[in-house]
Amino acid sequence: MIPIVSIVGKSDSGKTTLIERLIPEIKRRGYRVASVKHDTHGFEIDREGKDSFRHKKAGAAISLISSPEKVAVIADVDRDLNLSELRDRFVSNVDLIISEGYYRDSQPKIEVFRKEAHGEPLCTENDHLIAFASDAPLDRGVPCFGLDEIERIADFIEERFLKK
Amino acid sequence: MIPIVSIVGKSDSGKTTLIERLIPEIKRRGYRVASVKHDTHGFEIDREGKDSFRHKKAGAAISLISSPEKVAVIADVDRDLNLSELRDRFVSNVDLIISEGYYRDSQPKIEVFRKEAHGEPLCTENDHLIAFASDAPLDRGVPCFGLDEIERIADFIEERFLKK
Repeated sequence: MIPIVSIVGKSDSGKTTLIERLIPEIKRRGYRVASVKHDTHGFEIDREGKDSFRHKKAGAAISLISSPEKVAVIADVDRDLNLSELRDRFVSNVDLIISEGYYRDSQPKIEVFRKEAHGEPLCTENDHLIAFASDAPLDRGVPCFGLDEIERIADFIEERFLKK
Repeated sequence: MIPIVSIVGKSDSGKTTLIERLIPEIKRRGYRVASVKHDTHGFEIDREGKDSFRHKKAGAAISLISSPEKVAVIADVDRDLNLSELRDRFVSNVDLIISEGYYRDSQPKIEVFRKEAHGEPLCTENDHLIAFASDAPLDRGVPCFGLDEIERIADFIEERFLKK
C-alpha cells in the first residue's frame, strides 16, 4: 500500500512551496512521488475541439489521453474522494503520495506554520499530526523542522514511510 | 475485467464522430463508459501557475487534482502503454472502455469505413476485427452496419460485451 503524507496548513502558509522543494529531494533519493491537490474552484483540463474533449462531452465517465511520455485521465466522481480512495483508483507505480491540504483526512500530516502570519497552528495532536515545518520552534510533542530544512524533512519522511 | 472495444479506421473515416454518437446511446442503456484516445502530437493538460502544475514540474511522477465533480490525473510513462495496461492502471468503475484508434492493439475492433474516401478497409480478419461501420456493404465475414445505425451497433456491443 502506497504511503500518504499530507502537507497541511492555513492559507498562504507555504504548502505548495514546501512540496515543490520536497518532491525533488525525495526524487533525488530514488523514489517516485505522486502528488494530490484538492480543487474547489473547478478546473478545465482538456481543450475545446480536441477529440478527448469530444469523448468526455459525449458522456464518457472517464476519458484518457495516452502518449509515449504521459497519460492524462479525467474522471467524473459523484463526491469528493478521500486520499485512500484516490490512491486506490488512480495511483500506482510510485513509492509515496504527497497531498497538499486534506486537513480533514485521516492520513499523517506535516503542518506548515508561520508564526508571523498565523497565531496558532491548524492541527492538534488529534489530527494525525506527525511534524511541523515552522518559522518558530513549537513544542507540541512532534518534531518541528525549520521551513528550509528540506533535507531533514525528507530524512524524516524517508525513515518513517520509505525505508523497508 | 472491463471489456475494451476499439473504433479504428483510416484518417478522417469518422472515428470520433461514431464514438460521440455511441457513447450517449450506451450510457442511455445504463452503462458507464470510459474512452481512450492516443495522442502522438503531445498535449498540455495543466495550466502554468496552477498548483497542480507546480507539483508536476517539481518532479511528481503522477499529479492528481481532485474536486467534488471530477478528478484529473497526469502521469509520466516511459513508453506507450497498451490498452490493457491503461485499463489496469487508470480505469475502474465503468462497464466498457471504447478506444479511438489502437489499430495495432489486440483488443476487438470495429472499423469505420467510407468507400468514397478509402479504397480498401484498414483491417483484415487477422486484426481482431468484429464488425464494420461502413457507407457501403462489405462481405468480410463480420457484421457490417451502416454509419448511422448507432442503435444496432450499440445492440451488438451490448450483446457481445455487456450482457452478463
